[in-house]
Amino acid sequence: MNQWLQDMSWEEAEKSIQKAGGVAILPVGSVEQHGYHMPLGTDSYVAITLAEDASKKTDTLLVPPLWFGWSPHHMVRPGTITIRPETLSEITYDIAASLNHHGIRKLIMINGHRIVNVVWMQLAAEKIQRELDMEVCIFDPAYMSKEIIKELEFGPVGHAEEIETSHMMYRYPELVNLKLAKDNPVQSSHLYSVDPSYEKDTLCYVPSSYAHAEKNAAIAGGTSGEPTKSDPQKGKIYHEHLVKRLVEVIEILREK
Amino acid sequence: MNQWLQDMSWEEAEKSIQKAGGVAILPVGSVEQHGYHMPLGTDSYVAITLAEDASKKTDTLLVPPLWFGWSPHHMVRPGTITIRPETLSEITYDIAASLNHHGIRKLIMINGHRIVNVVWMQLAAEKIQRELDMEVCIFDPAYMSKEIIKELEFGPVGHAEEIETSHMMYRYPELVNLKLAKDNPVQSSHLYSVDPSYEKDTLCYVPSSYAHAEKNAAIAGGTSGEPTKSDPQKGKIYHEHLVKRLVEVIEILREK
Amino acid sequence: MNQWLQDMSWEEAEKSIQKAGGVAILPVGSVEQHGYHMPLGTDSYVAITLAEDASKKTDTLLVPPLWFGWSPHHMVRPGTITIRPETLSEITYDIAASLNHHGIRKLIMINGHRIVNVVWMQLAAEKIQRELDMEVCIFDPAYMSKEIIKELEFGPVGHAEEIETSHMMYRYPELVNLKLAKDNPVQSSHLYSVDPSYEKDTLCYVPSSYAHAEKNAAIAGGTSGEPTKSDPQKGKIYHEHLVKRLVEVIEILREK
Amino acid sequence: MNQWLQDMSWEEAEKSIQKAGGVAILPVGSVEQHGYHMPLGTDSYVAITLAEDASKKTDTLLVPPLWFGWSPHHMVRPGTITIRPETLSEITYDIAASLNHHGIRKLIMINGHRIVNVVWMQLAAEKIQRELDMEVCIFDPAYMSKEIIKELEFGPVGHAEEIETSHMMYRYPELVNLKLAKDNPVQSSHLYSVDPSYEKDTLCYVPSSYAHAEKNAAIAGGTSGEPTKSDPQKGKIYHEHLVKRLVEVIEILREK
Amino acid sequence: MNQWLQDMSWEEAEKSIQKAGGVAILPVGSVEQHGYHMPLGTDSYVAITLAEDASKKTDTLLVPPLWFGWSPHHMVRPGTITIRPETLSEITYDIAASLNHHGIRKLIMINGHRIVNVVWMQLAAEKIQRELDMEVCIFDPAYMSKEIIKELEFGPVGHAEEIETSHMMYRYPELVNLKLAKDNPVQSSHLYSVDPSYEKDTLCYVPSSYAHAEKNAAIAGGTSGEPTKSDPQKGKIYHEHLVKRLVEVIEILREK
Amino acid sequence: MNQWLQDMSWEEAEKSIQKAGGVAILPVGSVEQHGYHMPLGTDSYVAITLAEDASKKTDTLLVPPLWFGWSPHHMVRPGTITIRPETLSEITYDIAASLNHHGIRKLIMINGHRIVNVVWMQLAAEKIQRELDMEVCIFDPAYMSKEIIKELEFGPVGHAEEIETSHMMYRYPELVNLKLAKDNPVQSSHLYSVDPSYEKDTLCYVPSSYAHAEKNAAIAGGTSGEPTKSDPQKGKIYHEHLVKRLVEVIEILREK
Repeated sequence: MNQWLQDMSWEEAEKSIQKAGGVAILPVGSVEQHGYHMPLGTDSYVAITLAEDASKKTDTLLVPPLWFGWSPHHMVRPGTITIRPETLSEITYDIAASLNHHGIRKLIMINGHRIVNVVWMQLAAEKIQRELDMEVCIFDPAYMSKEIIKELEFGPVGHAEEIETSHMMYRYPELVNLKLAKDNPVQSSHLYSVDPSYEKDTLCYVPSSYAHAEKNAAIAGGTSGEPTKSDPQKGKIYHEHLVKRLVEVIEILREK
Repeated sequence: MNQWLQDMSWEEAEKSIQKAGGVAILPVGSVEQHGYHMPLGTDSYVAITLAEDASKKTDTLLVPPLWFGWSPHHMVRPGTITIRPETLSEITYDIAASLNHHGIRKLIMINGHRIVNVVWMQLAAEKIQRELDMEVCIFDPAYMSKEIIKELEFGPVGHAEEIETSHMMYRYPELVNLKLAKDNPVQSSHLYSVDPSYEKDTLCYVPSSYAHAEKNAAIAGGTSGEPTKSDPQKGKIYHEHLVKRLVEVIEILREK
Repeated sequence: MNQWLQDMSWEEAEKSIQKAGGVAILPVGSVEQHGYHMPLGTDSYVAITLAEDASKKTDTLLVPPLWFGWSPHHMVRPGTITIRPETLSEITYDIAASLNHHGIRKLIMINGHRIVNVVWMQLAAEKIQRELDMEVCIFDPAYMSKEIIKELEFGPVGHAEEIETSHMMYRYPELVNLKLAKDNPVQSSHLYSVDPSYEKDTLCYVPSSYAHAEKNAAIAGGTSGEPTKSDPQKGKIYHEHLVKRLVEVIEILREK
Repeated sequence: MNQWLQDMSWEEAEKSIQKAGGVAILPVGSVEQHGYHMPLGTDSYVAITLAEDASKKTDTLLVPPLWFGWSPHHMVRPGTITIRPETLSEITYDIAASLNHHGIRKLIMINGHRIVNVVWMQLAAEKIQRELDMEVCIFDPAYMSKEIIKELEFGPVGHAEEIETSHMMYRYPELVNLKLAKDNPVQSSHLYSVDPSYEKDTLCYVPSSYAHAEKNAAIAGGTSGEPTKSDPQKGKIYHEHLVKRLVEVIEILREK
Repeated sequence: MNQWLQDMSWEEAEKSIQKAGGVAILPVGSVEQHGYHMPLGTDSYVAITLAEDASKKTDTLLVPPLWFGWSPHHMVRPGTITIRPETLSEITYDIAASLNHHGIRKLIMINGHRIVNVVWMQLAAEKIQRELDMEVCIFDPAYMSKEIIKELEFGPVGHAEEIETSHMMYRYPELVNLKLAKDNPVQSSHLYSVDPSYEKDTLCYVPSSYAHAEKNAAIAGGTSGEPTKSDPQKGKIYHEHLVKRLVEVIEILREK
Repeated sequence: MNQWLQDMSWEEAEKSIQKAGGVAILPVGSVEQHGYHMPLGTDSYVAITLAEDASKKTDTLLVPPLWFGWSPHHMVRPGTITIRPETLSEITYDIAASLNHHGIRKLIMINGHRIVNVVWMQLAAEKIQRELDMEVCIFDPAYMSKEIIKELEFGPVGHAEEIETSHMMYRYPELVNLKLAKDNPVQSSHLYSVDPSYEKDTLCYVPSSYAHAEKNAAIAGGTSGEPTKSDPQKGKIYHEHLVKRLVEVIEILREK
């Protein structure tokens, strides 16, 4: 039996919360353009698959996904949905408060949407921690894969680039159409980068303005990076690295 | 190809919005106790299956589901998640605003959670209508099945009763465990009923207090009604009636 | 002596709260167009007169009326005042919190404005119930008169129709000018009705858009229904039915 | 015919708005303890009677009263209702926005509740002025009677003192029970006074804490001042002075 | 050593809070036009210098200044910054809550910005008092100098007039350029005045509309009053009067 | 003449805005414990001195500092003040909106408080960018000194460590008391670090819980790192690097 809360009766949920050692995972992503070759739901699928695979190894409770994220800069292409960060923070708080009521004391938010969602998640996490006295971790693939990205010789973190694409090709091949992928190599920029492993001086991230995002989307359909270099085998290694790390985080939380 | 937004690239979304005639469906449910025999996600699954089946016949765009609803009174049993109605209204507004930006002018919210979600949906719908100048319909199975419920000789609308259970048995048999169902017949009440087809004088609905919900949950695990009388064949007729009505609503909206 | 709080000294209020068994009534209505023949304050007057007459028989405490309601769709005609539902909910919450502080444990909101105010009243009532641990009932004439409306052979609930007009003619004849009344018979609609006793499948209520309300107001000055068929004798029976029901609700609350 | 909006049909309202030269009055008061001898609704009645009498001479439109004010410090005695100032500001804004939609361009708020309501009224007035481009005046008896109070040899402004009591005895004798009045002379205080005509250095007003209000209420039932010195003849002169001033303000606004 | 919190280590702060007897001062001003001859920060500098000089005599804790105030009407001239009053109220509340956590039980807000900031300060002060059970005083030069202003034969309180200018010339001569000062004598107005010692009937203050402020700024660069009559010697007497009063307030608070 | 807005008349501000090429700097810090040896205002002083020195070279407009930041985790030691992030975001938005009204089109927020303030600054910046169409940069010393920190052989970024201390010793020697400094070496942690140049996999930052912060403060008075290794000469090089970078950012913004 899977550990998705929505599939359990309340009696099963009661048992699962105990078996999970009071740890739950909330997968959060986004519905936003991912170039010509990947689906709008990419970030959510990434969060979901990591959650599922780590849960299989640990019996951690899975909360139904929050499909929507904060994506103001991707509204330049059809299908993108953006929610105000304060609203996302409030809904996450309520989910945590409900879980807390039923005995979940430790929450992992998996963020498939990288740096943008991290902002409001930090606000939500601090409030959940302070007001509900829960332990909260934000697990984000881009931050949890600095080592493996170097090992795999991927280029820098961009958007819909070879890292994300390889991951999706491994887990959701039917949702990727690599033939449509178009490259837009990330320029080595002075003073600024969205890549969390960027080693030089850097201004802090602010989501691009509509005008700037429009300009970027015109180059390669919204892609930043080189998806044509994607490889499902690398995606597998990347995925397994992340699942391993996630399992590790779950174990640390359980022992606390 | 299905019409779920999360599975499309933005180019596919662009085409689908056109093909859909500018109509989209947002399925909303809840994660809340549904007795001993049904999953916490019942209301969301109901909304999802109706949306999917009507979309197949009409190419209407499907927005990823909002799994969570307003369920303060069901917090008496493990696994229930309740979101404040104002937060649900805000997130729905942002979803609508994003869709509107991409050319969706007509939105159907399917509410699998019955009378409770309807409240905040009305607030959201009015605001979306007024500020975004979109057309919004709230499609709720309990209100859209008054006729068929009588024909099928179901008892009154309660919670996790024979209507919902029959529907779930038809569409998601693997998630129902009828052997565990326990009956708690709805008492014919003077002055008050949650059943929208109740024909006598009635006080307006207010979600039960925690104390009152606790008392009710103690009787039959949260069930109100007689799920042991459920029948997947009736569930099929009920489902088809609702899909037909939903298709009808979509067609009316398209022609406007 | 009457039971209006505003007319008592605090010493009298102290005694009245005791005598009332901790039950208070808050009359809420609206200031909105009611056709050519009825005053803007109709809904508030309806709530006030029911509150007063039930209080006479039960010594229930009367809170000064909230004259204003949520009426976005009636802004198409001069004099209508609309308050955002969240603001109405907040002010009602504060009134309840103050009453609670002084020993009122049970609150009846009488809504003279029918389906529209019910929405925010449900939100307010749930919050009052949960946070203040008070008992709250929403008493709405349109829902509490399904039986008598049939008996009196009134047409369906609309707006400023024969039901409301007969009631006002009985209680406030000086405010009604029946000669100006213009009929606009309610069409038997497929899938949708504002009448709470409508027996067929129905979409859930959303207040009309400005454009749609404008179109309707152009037909008969904002009336939906047949006010020319009004009759103060029927209004008397209708009123007495409602007062009787209200007294019944008060008694149930007192005994709890 | 009176000029109360609630008593008009929308056609009458349309004419009245024109006749009123686009000026409306919103009477606001409070429901709060007024000693042993005066009703909880005193402040609202004061605002209502001034509004009515000035309207009779000028045909100014009267908006239904907002009975409730900000009275946190008077919660120490039964029957007092206090609304958060931000809520009062929001409801007033919505009333103004609705009136503005129908052609009212100038709004007078009469505040019967003195210094406490003035605070939130200033916030509301500024926002109405800036966002709706309306002209707003706050007319408060305590500020508009500095001259006549000296002439009539009243003591300082306190609470339920001889000024307010004389006014109520003249206009609402049936609601005052002077035999119950108890004096609590206002001490000439160094550095602080609630009297707007206090001529010395003064700290700015902050509503008393609950503890401090409790101490004061214990002395004379909530009275500050000497109500036993009240005189309806002085009340008449006081009332007429205020009505005259209000008419003057209305005329200034009309000519703008 | 000075008493500014920002300059202390936490160990020093701990001792200072004790030595201060639990009393702290928060200086608040504004950044707004002050005519041709005075700096935008005038109101903040006024609050800061009073706080500093009173702290020297009493060891009262000084909280870093809030430079910004509510100045919607001064936006007509460059450099003015206006913050919404509700935001100012919230930030002040949080400052108070933090201080309270560390043992500060009594807070004096010095308002260098006169009548406009007083409004939101009253809201903040009441909330701090009620929710945090702290004692709060609002100390405003314009209200605390009624006596000395008469003695010094200054004209009425206006804006950037001889009172403020004399004060700044005494304390911050390098920031005043008296040669640029332009007079705009305050007209003795019927029914309305911004001067808190105005002795006649008065409408309550509402910040001027943009249009009205623009008109006034065109006369003398934003000045209301006669700054050319300024005199640093009078400024000295005025300053010392205010410091003396402030010390007195601190002592009263300490003894409570 | 300096470029601080608070010291200018509005005529001077008008000229300075032009001279600044429409670029302004808002220094933001915090009032929070900085170990035994540094003042509570450290972060604000850091932001102020960088702003001042870069302004001297570029004539950029300086907005008065916002002394307060988000510091929930430092409340464990006296003197710390924490403001809710949403309030900080709102006040910053209003400052930006006011500046925008006067012709400032580009805003640099200098954050002396490192990773914690960055969160709400990102929210504010995105909103300012989107709603006011301004260009916004967040300049944070910890992110803008990755290179120089390595060159200077400083240890990792912690709190009140040798980096911050060296900087303060160079710019504000009178506020640092190095004799009191106590070391608390940053442990090389697996999976998590507050240092933005940490090269391994990392969980995203969430401010520590009160309990955890208390435990850490007990070790070395709130310090994380080795302040005893501080050196004002290194502080000078560090400072000059940051000023140079800031000047560079100003120039890039001007040219846009």
